[in-house]
Order: sequence, then structure tokens, then C-alpha cells
Amino acid sequence: MKSINWDSKSYKIDGQPEFLVSGEFHYFRVPKKEWEVRLNLFKEAGGNCVATYVPWILHEPSEGDFRLGDIPERDLEGFLDLCKKLEIFVICRPGPYQYSEMKYDGLPQWLIKNYKEILANDIKGNILRHSSISYLHPKFLEKARLWYEKICPIISKWTLSKGGPVAFIQFDNELGGIHEWFGGLDYNKEAMGLGDENGRFPLFLREKYKETSLLNISYGTDFNSFKDAYPISSEDIKNDFDRLRVKDYQEFYFTVIASYAEILVNWFKEFNIDCNIVHNSANPTMNSYFLETIDKLKGGFLLGSDHYYNLDMNWNQNNPTPLYAEKVFYSNEMLRLMGFPATVFELPGGSPSDWPPITHEDLKCCYMTNVALGMKGLNYYIFTGGPNPLNIGSNGDSYDYNASIGENGDIRDNYNVQKEFGEFLKENSWMARSYKVSDFYVGLNFEYSRSGRYTNNSSIDSFSNEEAWILMNKGIIISSLCGSYSPNLVNLYDESYDEFLDKPLVITSSNYMAKEIQMKLVSFIKNGGRVIICPVIPCYDENFKSCTILKDFLQRATCNKFHTNDLRINLREIKNIHVSSAFYSTKSPEGAEAIGIEENSGRIVAWEKCYDRGGSITWLGLNWNHDKNSQIDMLTSILKIDKPIVLCDNHNLWTSLRTNQENSILFIMNLFSSSLTGKIKVLGSDGNYINLGKYTLKPMEVKTINL
Amino acid sequence: MKSINWDSKSYKIDGQPEFLVSGEFHYFRVPKKEWEVRLNLFKEAGGNCVATYVPWILHEPSEGDFRLGDIPERDLEGFLDLCKKLEIFVICRPGPYQYSEMKYDGLPQWLIKNYKEILANDIKGNILRHSSISYLHPKFLEKARLWYEKICPIISKWTLSKGGPVAFIQFDNELGGIHEWFGGLDYNKEAMGLGDENGRFPLFLREKYKETSLLNISYGTDFNSFKDAYPISSEDIKNDFDRLRVKDYQEFYFTVIASYAEILVNWFKEFNIDCNIVHNSANPTMNSYFLETIDKLKGGFLLGSDHYYNLDMNWNQNNPTPLYAEKVFYSNEMLRLMGFPATVFELPGGSPSDWPPITHEDLKCCYMTNVALGMKGLNYYIFTGGPNPLNIGSNGDSYDYNASIGENGDIRDNYNVQKEFGEFLKENSWMARSYKVSDFYVGLNFEYSRSGRYTNNSSIDSFSNEEAWILMNKGIIISSLCGSYSPNLVNLYDESYDEFLDKPLVITSSNYMAKEIQMKLVSFIKNGGRVIICPVIPCYDENFKSCTILKDFLQRATCNKFHTNDLRINLREIKNIHVSSAFYSTKSPEGAEAIGIEENSGRIVAWEKCYDRGGSITWLGLNWNHDKNSQIDMLTSILKIDKPIVLCDNHNLWTSLRTNQENSILFIMNLFSSSLTGKIKVLGSDGNYINLGKYTLKPMEVKTINL
Repeated sequence: MKSINWDSKSYKIDGQPEFLVSGEFHYFRVPKKEWEVRLNLFKEAGGNCVATYVPWILHEPSEGDFRLGDIPERDLEGFLDLCKKLEIFVICRPGPYQYSEMKYDGLPQWLIKNYKEILANDIKGNILRHSSISYLHPKFLEKARLWYEKICPIISKWTLSKGGPVAFIQFDNELGGIHEWFGGLDYNKEAMGLGDENGRFPLFLREKYKETSLLNISYGTDFNSFKDAYPISSEDIKNDFDRLRVKDYQEFYFTVIASYAEILVNWFKEFNIDCNIVHNSANPTMNSYFLETIDKLKGGFLLGSDHYYNLDMNWNQNNPTPLYAEKVFYSNEMLRLMGFPATVFELPGGSPSDWPPITHEDLKCCYMTNVALGMKGLNYYIFTGGPNPLNIGSNGDSYDYNASIGENGDIRDNYNVQKEFGEFLKENSWMARSYKVSDFYVGLNFEYSRSGRYTNNSSIDSFSNEEAWILMNKGIIISSLCGSYSPNLVNLYDESYDEFLDKPLVITSSNYMAKEIQMKLVSFIKNGGRVIICPVIPCYDENFKSCTILKDFLQRATCNKFHTNDLRINLREIKNIHVSSAFYSTKSPEGAEAIGIEENSGRIVAWEKCYDRGGSITWLGLNWNHDKNSQIDMLTSILKIDKPIVLCDNHNLWTSLRTNQENSILFIMNLFSSSLTGKIKVLGSDGNYINLGKYTLKPMEVKTINL
Repeated sequence: MKSINWDSKSYKIDGQPEFLVSGEFHYFRVPKKEWEVRLNLFKEAGGNCVATYVPWILHEPSEGDFRLGDIPERDLEGFLDLCKKLEIFVICRPGPYQYSEMKYDGLPQWLIKNYKEILANDIKGNILRHSSISYLHPKFLEKARLWYEKICPIISKWTLSKGGPVAFIQFDNELGGIHEWFGGLDYNKEAMGLGDENGRFPLFLREKYKETSLLNISYGTDFNSFKDAYPISSEDIKNDFDRLRVKDYQEFYFTVIASYAEILVNWFKEFNIDCNIVHNSANPTMNSYFLETIDKLKGGFLLGSDHYYNLDMNWNQNNPTPLYAEKVFYSNEMLRLMGFPATVFELPGGSPSDWPPITHEDLKCCYMTNVALGMKGLNYYIFTGGPNPLNIGSNGDSYDYNASIGENGDIRDNYNVQKEFGEFLKENSWMARSYKVSDFYVGLNFEYSRSGRYTNNSSIDSFSNEEAWILMNKGIIISSLCGSYSPNLVNLYDESYDEFLDKPLVITSSNYMAKEIQMKLVSFIKNGGRVIICPVIPCYDENFKSCTILKDFLQRATCNKFHTNDLRINLREIKNIHVSSAFYSTKSPEGAEAIGIEENSGRIVAWEKCYDRGGSITWLGLNWNHDKNSQIDMLTSILKIDKPIVLCDNHNLWTSLRTNQENSILFIMNLFSSSLTGKIKVLGSDGNYINLGKYTLKPMEVKTINL
């Protein structure tokens, strides 16, 4: 076997940068006699890896009865041996939790039926769902340990270091999803130690607040001990005290995920599994649930995400849409900023639903969009399936999944799409280390992306974290993509912003911004950075306590929200800009130039202030979802980008230019169901535009131009 | 001017069946010098009517200062005169409420600012929104009356009977929307008479319950008088008593809409406006909010609906999708069953948002889908716009709306689509009286479509009204359309079901079914009707009181819900059918044949019982959203339709066959973003299939075949 490793920019196979091209391939579903034929088909389609669950439900059908290799569907080692022979890497996903449309999510029935205490609870103590377990429940960990004791030594025999194909092992699956999707966080009393002075949650509070008196100040309470500080629910938030309690519990929950991950990872190590460790976030919005896990594991694993666009009729869209692409963009950017080569561990390869269909045109568009926006590794979910063995399937006898290679081995159109895409990746393997060229930066505040649970009472804020997150995505990013701009994200929690001095940095802010970010922004401006902040200037830190570092720097600039809908907002020469809500300056910094005015009231809605060394800050008191071309004009006026990297005269075609300095490639994406035409120019290295001409794209077509 | 009238099947112009082809055309936005050019353009595109708001905000800018004709933007009569000259019908929409992206929804600013008491309230007494008024508030009615006193005599001079072009007048606009979208129903204390023995709501209760003792029995309360029975909120529903209170208030609210409509209609008559009266429901799900209004006005008006597919990025889809088509289907069917020629008073002609785009391919698909599924009249919203006069616009200075004819008169691609569609309607004007051919009937229970507010606590029901509504749409109808079946809806509140004896009648039922429906179903079966009911047999009437007419007829057949997810459901030869939830029979009628079994438990999940005269009932204890082909097989097995009217071998292509006996036309719809191919056969009058061959449809293409 070759070697495979990764760094923050790409995977490397035998030291050479390459894309990870994996396909989900379940030895327990694909008939054994079909393994080799289909693995070879996958290799022919550019695959270099396969992923498989190793289902606990299958290998331990009754408690203590561990089975391996007794029937072809349980012949994990036979499968690994074949992968070794065919020189294809393997990602093993031994759970405990797996899902994969298996009954009990792949947990054994006996576990769920005999140990009901392990189930996750909602805040009222009710069971969330029949098979959502509480990760740190001692009984669950005891049983999971016994499973790992059996299965890990087997897997460990087949890792790369021992000449086997297993290059990656995944702990659990889509952590947090089984709670999130069925009611919220887990409040299992025993696992979380609620009401127990030495329980996990009280200890978390003790660690954070040290003394109950300090906790009481923060919570506005008069608890006698940490164990009395029971979590409260989102619906009960009435003020910032309550909100902090909800935020604290969520943060605690993320540390629970981290602790659980650490336990599983330690077991892997204990059983001598020495390959790369991975995990997949269930979807882009959940990527940031893993910050604590990354901290705890100190980078000792690789986080990827799942990027589906449709799994059944209740999804918003049937095909990849611009909103899907925007999500792919921020997901890949988040993973990059976390230090990973952006990997989509579940990239659609079919659907559990026969309808709506996953068509080959849509699928190709999806793949190209993902790579245009930064994907460095992928795993088609699934590449091929088969019958559900031993009645473990939760949605039928067949796990055909409408995949590229059918249950019976038939080769479908989607296979050709994957093959074509595989060839594209091979021909452009330099892209594995490419980056997206950008005109400007958008500041990513990870906390904003996970704040929905504690910012649901809008009456407390003038602008909430969640609103700031939406403005970033549906306002700033979508307006700029429509306007043919090329934004990249930067992590506002980065050590230093020095490397962002070259381009404008746009930040959406709620009333709350971490102290460290406020400090960095101030020093960034002092160092000559150009900041655009909208729509408010924060006055509080991330714990909702007063923090006016940025505000003080801006001579205590303040703004208020307009409470009328009768607004007429002009910015420089752009008249009557449509917004969802707006703020007016009640105090601007000295020397700030008013650049935006609400005409009826005469109030200032945007100002700009310059500092020494070229630094400046523009405050734009506007909140919008992109819907009007004038919002693009407004961005243009604010950003003052001399020469955007790409010029496209059709707002409905989005572009992405990727380069590794030597090579460059332009992606043009039509994510609509109609043909679209646009004239494209790209900025050359000499500072002049290269006219690429006029392009007509079919519905769902992504075109590439090697430059 | 010609005459225009309507009956339940179509519009008629000078006695000839024709489609109503209207376009929204605002005299106050389109520059006066452009009126004639653009009206002629619309006529060339097949238009025979235009619609315009007559904005109160524009014509009475300050209280008592009524203005008409002083500036071109207020020259309503000049516009009507021109329409007369050009022989184009006019729909006048004088409000009071209008919306149309106008400030204060087209209500005068002075009204909202000086009479805050007229604003609608939520259940806690808070204002719903800055310009959502309470329809029956006396102060609002007083001011609205003054507006009608001014404007109606003007309009009345121009009705058809007086040689003018005004063929239709609309009272208000999208009744209920201004409350529904901003928090729920209106609880304005004064308007609703809450707490007042002679107030509207207490009187409504008195009318329904006669005596407080009877109210108390129904509500499980001990009120001393009707005035004490304050409405309660949906969130407070804990049992059937509470639920009835919420349902009663909603029903009351619908009578308020009816009373308001009646007042406006009476004013029209008082001021001698003698043309057809119309109203538009804001969207398909709100069509059933007008049952009380239809009752009250005794058919004296025509109800249509609005069928948008995208107005901004937050809509689920960018283009017409199958779920959009399904909504169009039930909307048109509802309107037909209410006795109207299905009219789409707002059919997209553009969008207030510049992005996402309304492309000509999508638009054409939208139009063809609407007519395929029963549309008999339409009004493009908007055909052409212009600048917002006097700053009345709420989303910018321009009301271009990306319409067919631009603000500056430029002719866009979408105009050609409308022209082509106009030609299609003209060539096929026989379609104005066509009906959709069907294989079987689906029973429409109007109440189920408006029950979301009182069935939100699922713990009370084993199957709620709202679930029954969703099963009808996302289960029965979508599975059958994918399976190439042709369902039509029937109104379960119809006088008699005698005319439905020819085909199977499929009914989704909650635990609640009106007594009259239960009675009709029993007599239908006795008369030889074939009924399929899923997933439960009702035991209660529409007021949640015991009512076992159907159950008694079925020898007290009962069923229970499975509370496990470990189900393996087989129906005849179809194995392991995927369902969302399922019920098992605890008592089947004598002689019923078990046709469906849950294999693990051996329990019966479907049975069939035959009666004399060919009558039968099939109970299918399954609830699903269409996602698996096996659900189509299940339907096939249950429906036992010998020869479906259309056979299409591609589940993703939907069809609709329309006929007037002499002529027939088959619509084939591709509502996906990819090309699709299908082989089509149609059943000929001789009982043999006509092979129409293989069709390939582009994304968003609708093909027609005249037979």
C-alpha cells in the first residue's frame, strides 16, 4: 500500500498532493462475489479509497455474541484483504452510532431494549427518541468499550503501518445529530451529572466560575452550590442572565462531545489503531460544534462535513441551488480555517428516496460546485449498495440508494458522472493544493454560527448573534457573489490579523463580540487594516457582559435601531436601498464622514473614518438578505475594490477562481434550472483584464476554464 | 365593450367560453404616456383584461384630502377611459388593504399614525404589526367607508353596464394574510368584542351553544356567561376541550372575514358598482379560509388564489417544482369544488426581488403547469410597472418587478413567454371548459386544510387533522402522480356522493370526521361505492365529540398506533414498505380480508371488506410521504385500477389529460432541473392504449400532445 497523509492544505499520497476520492462501500450489503468487480469499477472512476461502517448491530446480534466472518455479510477481514490486494485505502467507521438507514442507527437492539437508562433525555427528562443514546452514560460507555475491545483489535491488524489498507478510522458518526434532530441537546441526568456536586455539568460550572458567588453574579441567581444551577431551556430566556445559562449548557454539551471523542480516540490508540483519525459533522451548520473537540484532541484528527442537497421531498430544494453552494462555501472555508483539507465525508452519490430523483446533471453540478469552492477530499455516499442483511434496514429490504452501481450491479448514468469527475480531478491534481483567489475577506465568528439556541428571544438584542450569522451569509456573501466579487473567510479568533492587511475585511457584528476579537480589530485598524462592520458596534463580550474595547476606540460611537418601516436609505449616489432593518448613528467618531443617510429622518446610517497607515473603519448600519441589485452597488461603494478579480455581467452566474500560483482555473456555475449567459473577464497578472468572452451554461452546468 | 361572465366551469366572453387573461397594470406606476403602448403590447400577448389597485394611500394623502386626476399618477379615470377605448376589461382593486409593496400596505400613513386603535392584536393584546388592521374595528370601518364613498362612485361610472371597461371589482386583498403572516389571528378586543356580552365573539358562542351550560359542557369550564369565554392560544392546548376553544375562535375569525367581505360588497352595491365581484386568497393553503365568506355572500363573488413559486431567496425553491405543481393542483381543485372557474389572480409575472431570477423557462413551465392542472383564469402579477410615485414604495424607488415590460418599456424574454402562452390558450380555447380526466377520486376534507392551529399538540391524537392533510398531499397524491395515475379531488361535504360511484374514492382520515361525512360514506358504500381509508377510522366528529357512525358500520373496527420503529410491513406481494408511521387493527369487521401484515408482530395493517352492490372498504393503516417506488406498488395493489388513463414509465414526469369530450390534450411536465425521458401511452376510447412514443423533455419543459 502507498502512504496517505494530510496537512492543512491537502491530502498527500506517497508524498504527492492528491484529492482523496472515496466511496461508501458496505461489505455487509454489497454481495461478496460482487466486491472485486465493483471495487475495480470504483478505481476506474478515479477512486482511491472506500469507506464502510462496521455495524455493531450486525456483529453482536445478541449481547456477548460477537460474530465476525461466520457469514459473508460479516466478513470484514475478507473485505479488507481484498482492498489491500486492490491497493485501495479504507475508512473504517465502527460507530458505536452509525445511522446509515439501519435499525437503531446500527446499535444493537439488545442494547436499546435492555438498557433504557442510556437514552438521551430532553430538559424535562423525557426520552428524546428510541435510539438516541447519551454519549457519556456509564452503562453505554461500558457496553461500547466491550464492542471496541472486540472490533478494534481486528481493525488494528489492517492499518497501513501493518501493510493493510485501513488509512482512516472514524469515531462515532455525525456527533450531536441524534440529539439536535430530535429535540435539542441531551440532558440525561446521570451522564451529565445534573444535581450532583461532582457531576459533569456542576464541575464544568465550577471550572468556569470557580466560586458559586461568581456564578450567581453571572446568572443573577442565589444558588448555594453549583449542583443547584440546573440548565434552563431556550424558551425560558427572558434576559441576558438566562441566555448565559443556556449558552453555558450548550458549551458544556460541546465539551461532552469532545470528551466522548477523546475516550473513543484513546480506545483506538489503546488497541493499537495507528492510522489517521477522522470524524464527520452532519452538516455545514454543525461544523462549529467541534471546536471543543479540536481543542481537546489537539489536532489529532481530521474533521470533515456532509454536503447533501436532497434526501427526500421535504428538503427545500431538489437540486443544488445557489443557497446550497453558499453553504458549501462556508462549510469548506470553516474546515480550512480549522486547519483541515476540506473534506466532504458524505457527498451525495444517490439518495435513500426513489423520489425526488438524484439526476446525473444535478450530481455533476454538485461535485463541481464543491470542488470549485474548496473541497479537497470526498466520500460518495454511497457508491454502491445491496440488500440489507438480517433485516437491519430501516427503510426497506434493499439498500440500493439509487447509487451509481445498482443493487444488482447495473451501471447507472451517475457512475459516468463520477468517472468524468474523477478524470477531471486527476487531470487537475494540482488543484489539491490550490486556494481560492479573493478580493476581500469576510470575518467568520464561529460562535455566531452556533448561537441559535440562545438568541431566540429577539426582544433582548437589537441585533443577535444569529442575525449576524444570517447577514454574513444571506447579505454580505450572496450579494458579493451575485456582484461577481470573490470573498474568502478569515477566522476572527486567529492569533493575528496581520496577513489580512492587504484587503478589506468585512465583519457582521451582533451586540456581542468576544473581547479578544475586539482587541484584534482595533490593533488591525491601527496597523493599517480596512474594516467594514455592519450593522451594529458591539458593546458586550461573548458572555453578554459589558465590553467596549472597539466602541471606546471609536470614541464611544453608538447606534440605535429604526423602529419604523418608513425608511428611505441612500448611500452616496445609491438611492432608496432595500433593507430588512437599519440602525442610525447616535454618536459617530470625530472626523468620520457620513456616507449613508436615511432621508426622511436625516439620520446617519453609515460612516467612514480613516486612520494613520491607511487604516479605516466603515460602519454600515444595514441588515439585508440579498434581493436587489442596489445592494451590490452599495457593496461596491463600500468595498472600493479597484479591480475585482473576476468580472461577470450576469448576477446569476457565480464564479470561483482557484490557483496554486503556477496554474489557475476559473469555475463558472449555473445553479438555476434555466440556461444562462454571461460575459467573463479575469484580471491578469499584469493588472489588465483578460476577456474570456461569452459563455452560455445549461441548467445546472458548471464550466471550467484553465487559465 | 363585450360582456364577460363566469359559471362554475369557465369564463365566457360574449357568451363564448374563454380564458380570462389579465395582467396587473398600475396606472399610478406606469407612466401615462406609456399606457397605450403597453396595453397594446399586452393585448398582442393575448391579454383581454388588466388589473389595478386603486391605492388609498395615493388618493387620500392626508385625511379628507381626496385627490383624483390632479396628477397623471392619480388619473384613474383617464386609465379606465383608455381601457374602454382599447376594449380591455379591468379588475379594480380599491382595497382598503392592498400591499403591492406599498408603504403601510397601501393604507394612508395618517390612518395608521392617528388611529392606532384600529391595529390588529395578538392574543396578548400586542400589536401584530405596524400596518395590519383589525377588519371590523369601528374606527377602521368608519374611515374605510369614507374612502369607499369617495372612490366607489367614480369606479361605478365605468362598469360594463355603463359602457365602461370595469368587469370585476375586488374587495380588500388576500384577506387574513396580514394577520396570519405576522403572528396568527386577530384578537383586537374592541373589534372582536372580547369580554363584552354583546360583543362579536360572545355572540358567536351564544349562536353556537345557545346556553352557557352547553358551552361549559363542550369546553369543560364553568363560565357564568359567554363573555367570560376568552379565546385561548394554540400553545395552551392540553386536551380536546382546549382544542375546541381554539377551533371555535378560528371559525369565528373566518366569520369575521365573511362579515367584513359582506360589508364591503354591500358598499359596492350601495354605490352602484354592478360588475362581478372577486377576491383572491393569498395562497393555496388559505383557500379554505373563505368557506364562511362563500356561505355569507351566497356565491355572489368569485374566489381565486395566488400561485407564486418564488418571491425571494427565502422561498423553498427557485423554480416551479413538483411540490409547487401539487399545490397548484389542490388549489385549482379546491376552487373548482367551491364552484368557481379556477382563477389565479396572482400568477407570477416577475418578482420584487432582482435575485433569485424569474427566468423565462421557469415562467413558461409555471404557466403550462397551472393550465394543465385546471387554471381557467389568470392575472400576471405584474405585467408591467414603473417608478413608485410620491415615495409610496416600500422596497425601492422603482417598481420594475422584473416584469415582462420593464420600467422603461423594454421588452424582455418573459414577454415572449406570455405571448406564446396567450397564443396557446387562444388556439386551445376549448380548454376553457375542459376537465381533467381521472382514474380515481381523493376525498377533500376542507377542514383538514385549515387545522394547523388547533392540531399542534400531537400527543392528544393518534392521527391529527393536519397529518391527514399532509398524507393526502404528500402521500396519496404525490405517490399517485409519480405512479402515472390521474386523481381528481371530490368535496366530502358535497350533498351526495352518487356521482362518485364509478371510481375508487381514497380518503385520508384523522381521528375526527364530521358526522355528515361519516353518514355519507356509509351510504356511499351501501350504494356500491369503493372506499379506501387511511390510516385510521375516525371515532369523533369535527368538534372532537364521540361520533362512531362509520366505525359502527364497520362493526366497531378499531386500530392502534405502533410505537416501535422496528416495523416490517408487507401488503400482498409487496414486502417491507417504508412508512412514517403505522396502525394495526385491534378489531376488524367480520368477513374482512387481511391484506397487509406487519411481519414482526403478525398484526394486520390493512384489510378489505366487500359489501353488496359492489361496495367495498379498504382500510390501510399506513402514513407516508412518497419516497419509495414500493409505495406506488402498494397504491396499485389497493386501487385495483384496470387501465390507468395515462401510462408513463418515468416516475419523475407527471401528466395531466384534459378533455371537453370533443377535444383532448395531454400535458407532460418535467419539473426538475435535468432532462428526462419517458414512454407514454394513453387509453383510447376503445379501451386500448395508444402508444404515443418516447418523449425527452428539457429541464422545466412542459410538452402538450393534442389527441
